[in-house]
Amino acid sequence: MLRVYGTSASGNCHKVRMALEALARPYTWTEIDILRGTTRTPEFLAMNPNGKVPVLEIEPGTYLAESNAILWYLAEGTPLLPSEPLQRARVLQWLFFEQYSHEPYIAVARFLRKLHPDPASQRALADSKMSGGYRALEVMEGHLAHTPFFVGERYSIADIALYAYTHAAGDGGFELERFPAVRAWLDRVQAQPGCTPMSA
Amino acid sequence: MLRVYGTSASGNCHKVRMALEALARPYTWTEIDILRGTTRTPEFLAMNPNGKVPVLEIEPGTYLAESNAILWYLAEGTPLLPSEPLQRARVLQWLFFEQYSHEPYIAVARFLRKLHPDPASQRALADSKMSGGYRALEVMEGHLAHTPFFVGERYSIADIALYAYTHAAGDGGFELERFPAVRAWLDRVQAQPGCTPMSA
Repeated sequence: MLRVYGTSASGNCHKVRMALEALARPYTWTEIDILRGTTRTPEFLAMNPNGKVPVLEIEPGTYLAESNAILWYLAEGTPLLPSEPLQRARVLQWLFFEQYSHEPYIAVARFLRKLHPDPASQRALADSKMSGGYRALEVMEGHLAHTPFFVGERYSIADIALYAYTHAAGDGGFELERFPAVRAWLDRVQAQPGCTPMSA
Repeated sequence: MLRVYGTSASGNCHKVRMALEALARPYTWTEIDILRGTTRTPEFLAMNPNGKVPVLEIEPGTYLAESNAILWYLAEGTPLLPSEPLQRARVLQWLFFEQYSHEPYIAVARFLRKLHPDPASQRALADSKMSGGYRALEVMEGHLAHTPFFVGERYSIADIALYAYTHAAGDGGFELERFPAVRAWLDRVQAQPGCTPMSA
């Protein structure tokens, strides 16, 4: 059976849970406490030398890292990933947008303000993430003004990847009220099978 | 014909050139001067609302952004991308590693030290990128100690993506002498068809 080594409060890990639930794939979840350095132990680094969650154990001894690579692997051949080449490339475009232009601002601001052991000490750093995060939300707003989902007018792993930290952006101090198309899209994603908000 | 809107001094753009040359695909290159704000004009934002190079024009009016999504699109069905599902997922794992754990340190340090109009003013920021960059190089070194190329012992777009800024890491102040397996891999990549170092 598939096993996820993940942290429930991490959006990157939550993506994997959402895909598995949407596909009704059986899996086991092993909770990893990133604040206690569990991802830096020799055992963890043997699974992912880059020391990050999530890690998917496909079979004993076979591991796959990087949340969006895991999403792609799980979604291949299912309705969560289109079959047409350009649409598939557009899914990837949004997955890379998420990891480069969205997560480093919106996820990091949330971590510093909500999950860090001493948020007050991190305020200046968290504040420095706001303009980049708002730029990402503006790009999403412009796109979602014209389409119900990110690619091909159908729910896909592009939506799962971007939902993960967008629905929790308020934790990082972002005002989603300014983005009506993003909010309507969040509602549409939340109506999909297997979609749940993060627990933390 | 395919057209690339790119900046020759950008590794992200250089990846696309390397893939096109390796595949012997005809293309036109339109040089974009990122330092003059060309990526923020209405014309450019109509191609890529995220305002970044490279952009691939697939046909008039059809654009694809994000360097690694472009690599995937070009490589599908060619020897640059494996056909086996787990190997394909591993290619993606390295592409996401490159954009999240490598490029933001190694490419940014290079930009600040070599391409910024006033590098002296950026020294502290560039210095702050070194430890993350060395962590990425250590992950690569550990992997390449056991395999000639990143995935499936064959040259793929994972190698192209990681070559782009690794071969120029010295520009950012990184000492590649400490990574013999990485250096041997750079030599192997440089022996591949279409591989050229960046011009700037």
